[in-house]
Amino acid sequence: MCNNCNYTIHGRHHHFGWDRSFQPVETVAPGSIIRFECMDSGSGHFTRESTVADIGTLDFSKVNPVTGPVYVDGAEPGDAIKVTIHEFEPSGFGWTGIIPGFGLLADQFTEPALALWSYDRESMTPAAFGKHARVPLKPFAGTIGLAPAEAGHHSVVPPRRVGGNLDIRDITVGTELYLPVEVAGGLFSIGDTHAAQGDGEVCGTAIESQMNLTLTLDLVKGANLKMPRFTTAGPVTRHLDARGYEVTTGIGADLMEGAKAAVSNMVDLLARQHNLTAEDAYMLCSVCGDLRISEIVDMPNWVVSFYFPRIVFE
Amino acid sequence: MCNNCNYTIHGRHHHFGWDRSFQPVETVAPGSIIRFECMDSGSGHFTRESTVADIGTLDFSKVNPVTGPVYVDGAEPGDAIKVTIHEFEPSGFGWTGIIPGFGLLADQFTEPALALWSYDRESMTPAAFGKHARVPLKPFAGTIGLAPAEAGHHSVVPPRRVGGNLDIRDITVGTELYLPVEVAGGLFSIGDTHAAQGDGEVCGTAIESQMNLTLTLDLVKGANLKMPRFTTAGPVTRHLDARGYEVTTGIGADLMEGAKAAVSNMVDLLARQHNLTAEDAYMLCSVCGDLRISEIVDMPNWVVSFYFPRIVFE
Repeated sequence: MCNNCNYTIHGRHHHFGWDRSFQPVETVAPGSIIRFECMDSGSGHFTRESTVADIGTLDFSKVNPVTGPVYVDGAEPGDAIKVTIHEFEPSGFGWTGIIPGFGLLADQFTEPALALWSYDRESMTPAAFGKHARVPLKPFAGTIGLAPAEAGHHSVVPPRRVGGNLDIRDITVGTELYLPVEVAGGLFSIGDTHAAQGDGEVCGTAIESQMNLTLTLDLVKGANLKMPRFTTAGPVTRHLDARGYEVTTGIGADLMEGAKAAVSNMVDLLARQHNLTAEDAYMLCSVCGDLRISEIVDMPNWVVSFYFPRIVFE
Repeated sequence: MCNNCNYTIHGRHHHFGWDRSFQPVETVAPGSIIRFECMDSGSGHFTRESTVADIGTLDFSKVNPVTGPVYVDGAEPGDAIKVTIHEFEPSGFGWTGIIPGFGLLADQFTEPALALWSYDRESMTPAAFGKHARVPLKPFAGTIGLAPAEAGHHSVVPPRRVGGNLDIRDITVGTELYLPVEVAGGLFSIGDTHAAQGDGEVCGTAIESQMNLTLTLDLVKGANLKMPRFTTAGPVTRHLDARGYEVTTGIGADLMEGAKAAVSNMVDLLARQHNLTAEDAYMLCSVCGDLRISEIVDMPNWVVSFYFPRIVFE
């Protein structure tokens, strides 16, 4: 809980998608510390009593609300908004779903699935998944961005140059993120908080979990960034790398096909080694496994590798 | 130096490319511990006296020699060869080159460049690059594989289902690698040793460095692997992650374009922050920066991120 914030942006001030014509809910000076009340990506649709049937009643016009927008005084196109993340206030409840038509292996996983998570919001110790797996937690905001210059309403789903649904696991406490400004004031919004996610978010969802959070918005004049960039305060995988990794590969001339092969091979491996359903293995891959490009220069075949942390089963 | 090896495969027993008709230089029982004398990927072309002009005289018919092949008794198609890496004997000298036409940003970097490295083979402390950068070392074999089933000669450049030029940074001491067998005996060879490399090997070369090494070859009957997989003995980035990372992104509908954008943005950032030439920044990215896929599900735009370890400049 923030005791020295300059502003609180309440959860009722949320919007769906991006639009430069959305009216700012607050105008702040650069350097302001702001607490955001965020909703989860399901807008509260899933509860501790939810079942897989609730995947079918998810309202896609109400997914991924973001809290804002905040107008940063003096921000102009060509500048960057610098976001420093200070603190998350996790809720202790989360969900992970397989949503038909969505996710890296959508062709293979055509039926819905739902996993519910309960975690200790104080200790943030690894969260149990079934009887034998425990997933280390690292909260972050999946969607963090500014309004794009192009007029009209833009879907929240794809990330863009101005950020948005970046789903970058390492935009967490201590991270300094720089976002290119395309409209006056930037029009910053944030949401889609996750308790844990691997690089790739391969099943399409993370541990989706409502959290409030605190950050500082600064202004860098004339930054002329091409794309978002960020600096992490320290290591990014030490919460889960102590026991090493199981790694599967996908080798071939197309990075997307390589990524699919690497993840599919890991789903098979985990299911066999730990007697999991393929759906459970796929969801576990999404919340804690990492997609990396091992080599991208040995023409014409590239190697995409999927790293699953062994600590989850130890 | 191996004192309990069952075999030594000498450096004169090397070959270029892969061919199931290459005669094995040794036949070994599963479980054998073997020391391999390896050449570097330039077959000794580069020395401590080399200049950038020597890039132009590199003989491409003699790049990437691998030592072997070794026939593993009892190995048949459908089995896997399990390789456990025990030890490297680094030489203390290495090189990194930009070779025109080769590398992720070949369109941008059309002129040759060469960096020479000298490192302490005992302490393996980070190796100096110019006056201000020091790159943490972690030796591994870039090329490790078996003969493909398809008859004829195959280029050493692209990796395949049976392994080969995988260039996976984490196939290092303690790693257990499983390679799918396609021909009787597997026909294992290894080479292309690197003192350090980032995920991606983005400029096309690592710290290319001659090393000998010791490993065990085991046999897993009926493994029926689709692609290579491996298990790391522990964390894979702790040699360089202590100070966190600078991260650039590439966002869009094509993973290859995203990877190029992320690396190009990092080259620009490092050059500006540290007063480096673009060529030096690009080579540094190749030897210690990591390409990761942050999200691959937020249709139609994916996020590829390039992580550069800040410890290199601290």
